[in-house]
Amino acid sequence: FFSIFQELLMFSQPHRRFNILTEEWVLCSPHRALRPWQGQVETSSADDRPHYDPSCYLCPGNKRVGGDKNADYLDTFVFTNDFSAILPRQSSDSGNDELRSHDDNEDGLLVASTTHGVCRVLCFSPRHDLTIAEMDVSAIRKVVDTWVSEYLSVGNLDYVNYVLIFENKGAMMGCSNPHPHGQLWATETIPNEPHKEIQSCERYHLKKDRCLLCDYVALEIKKKERIVCESDYFVSLVPYWAIWPFEVMLLPKRHLSSVLDLSTEERDDLSDMLRRVACRYDNLFQTSFPYSMGLHQAPTSPDAFSAATAPPEDRRRLVHMHLHFYPPLLRSATVRKFMVGFELLGEPQRDLTAEQSAERLRNLDEVHFRQRS
Amino acid sequence: FFSIFQELLMFSQPHRRFNILTEEWVLCSPHRALRPWQGQVETSSADDRPHYDPSCYLCPGNKRVGGDKNADYLDTFVFTNDFSAILPRQSSDSGNDELRSHDDNEDGLLVASTTHGVCRVLCFSPRHDLTIAEMDVSAIRKVVDTWVSEYLSVGNLDYVNYVLIFENKGAMMGCSNPHPHGQLWATETIPNEPHKEIQSCERYHLKKDRCLLCDYVALEIKKKERIVCESDYFVSLVPYWAIWPFEVMLLPKRHLSSVLDLSTEERDDLSDMLRRVACRYDNLFQTSFPYSMGLHQAPTSPDAFSAATAPPEDRRRLVHMHLHFYPPLLRSATVRKFMVGFELLGEPQRDLTAEQSAERLRNLDEVHFRQRS
Ligand SMILES: [Zn+2]
Ligand SMILES: [Zn+2]
Repeated sequence: FFSIFQELLMFSQPHRRFNILTEEWVLCSPHRALRPWQGQVETSSADDRPHYDPSCYLCPGNKRVGGDKNADYLDTFVFTNDFSAILPRQSSDSGNDELRSHDDNEDGLLVASTTHGVCRVLCFSPRHDLTIAEMDVSAIRKVVDTWVSEYLSVGNLDYVNYVLIFENKGAMMGCSNPHPHGQLWATETIPNEPHKEIQSCERYHLKKDRCLLCDYVALEIKKKERIVCESDYFVSLVPYWAIWPFEVMLLPKRHLSSVLDLSTEERDDLSDMLRRVACRYDNLFQTSFPYSMGLHQAPTSPDAFSAATAPPEDRRRLVHMHLHFYPPLLRSATVRKFMVGFELLGEPQRDLTAEQSAERLRNLDEVHFRQRS
Repeated sequence: FFSIFQELLMFSQPHRRFNILTEEWVLCSPHRALRPWQGQVETSSADDRPHYDPSCYLCPGNKRVGGDKNADYLDTFVFTNDFSAILPRQSSDSGNDELRSHDDNEDGLLVASTTHGVCRVLCFSPRHDLTIAEMDVSAIRKVVDTWVSEYLSVGNLDYVNYVLIFENKGAMMGCSNPHPHGQLWATETIPNEPHKEIQSCERYHLKKDRCLLCDYVALEIKKKERIVCESDYFVSLVPYWAIWPFEVMLLPKRHLSSVLDLSTEERDDLSDMLRRVACRYDNLFQTSFPYSMGLHQAPTSPDAFSAATAPPEDRRRLVHMHLHFYPPLLRSATVRKFMVGFELLGEPQRDLTAEQSAERLRNLDEVHFRQRS
């Protein structure tokens, strides 16, 4: 029993909320949203980039630091990162099997293992001056198509078990180039974050024989208060346990395990929803909204699951694909949220509630502020 | 079996290391340390603060935003934060017991609980222009003494089970005031980070009947390669699983569960080690080095432990107190590490190895660069 009155009362006082995906808590302090701001203010650069920048290493036809020349591409363009954080397995590595996994050395205190993988860069558009918020849906559809083909081709490498597709946007996020692009890191092991989520989904499935995120999506659509926008096939919402002030999850309503499961209609719909979310973001503070965004989906190898609760062919079905948007901005184009102090040493803390953030994002226009006459 | 040759080979290639405290992984890419920097460069403010700033709300005798006036303090000064993220339990709250814990509502999908606590601010010194790196050891000793008295007094509140003492330093960390100060958040629940650590320590103790961090400290002192500096009672090191480029842990060699266990000599020694670590940090890039620093120690209530593996009076003994320093700087006073993209959506990644960072910190002077003639 949890009445609306109790919920209102709780949500006006300091409280903690539980993240069902990572099984960690976030501290919520709604009474504090009005405290004065005395911290660092970031610079917001006026966005007047040219269509083509001869000094940009991502623009079509330009030379990269590594010496290679970009194709004269017309929609998307993918290449292997010249400074990859992980490297492919070489045939000469196979003799070093002993080196690949030292999962219990020095009494379990110093544990390391070598790892292999591929880092790819994906240019979203030949246009240096666009972002997803201002691209045509048909152009974003090319990005989605490239996610599918890359997930498939890189995922097929025998030493790749997980493919993390993400975008890091804006100087505030340390992004070194404003040309619209994302990345794709294909790894031998499942990284921490999706690993925690998959374990939670497995546990939920074991207990209830249902999908955690199917249930969550259905509940949020019923409740409405955290929904940002909705389409036939997708829904975007501020999760109940959001950490970042305007954090958003974008989920398919249907149980899709990876981008491979997307129908043609769903690819179009996802492309449109990506634009709608990014556009609302830009309109919130009338700025090119910085964020880290990424897709969590099924590992590309069924062996990569921790608990073998199902036959290999069913294991990937435990995962319900979704996108996370983690944007740092808090109050304006120049005032950000810092994840420091108590956040780093204790647990994440936020002032604005998820419901308040969702309401603000929900009330925004889906026409980009720069495209309004 | 893990030979030095294998270790060298592994540590020159991409590999993952395991954090025994949080049980999460960090991706390490040593081959990548030389990639060109094209990202955001921060401004480094020249540090010419006055001894006393009439507009600073932390300087002695000044008025705070909330209207209260600071004491004319001579060493440390503590007050309750005027904008606390958590609030004390009121006697009127006791009727709302039902509201305090909703640990399983809406099918376990929307889980929240109210929480209480106290947020305190601790001024380290009346001098507006100092930091721990430049304070006298005798003045830092007053800070350590205040940690002890606050841990004791706030920890004794019946709704407080954990006391997190931390310092957030520098505009890059969102710190709103350069006056040397830390904070103390006393909470009803154990925050995520110490909770994960305590669970790991409990598991290790259950398995080996020894303390995880006693064993780790002994191993690191034997290995030497990650030690930054050492004293009679304490050791500072770059942990094997460090995430931040120049992350440091400061640990007592003896098994101390909290600051209450510090002997007089250990309080002096800790004060000196705090100065030594902070001074090396400032000397690294000849700047006032930003960081978040905090103490992880025993909960103030034995009931706060998850698993009752020992009688109440012994449970706090499972914890080995330690300090974490999380500094953002990477290459210079103006180039920082960003925790974004793969870090947020996958897992932390670093280029410099922990051994390389430790060596650089180890080779630095312990006389502050501004105090050299
Ligand atoms: Zn996810
Ligand atoms: Zn700790």
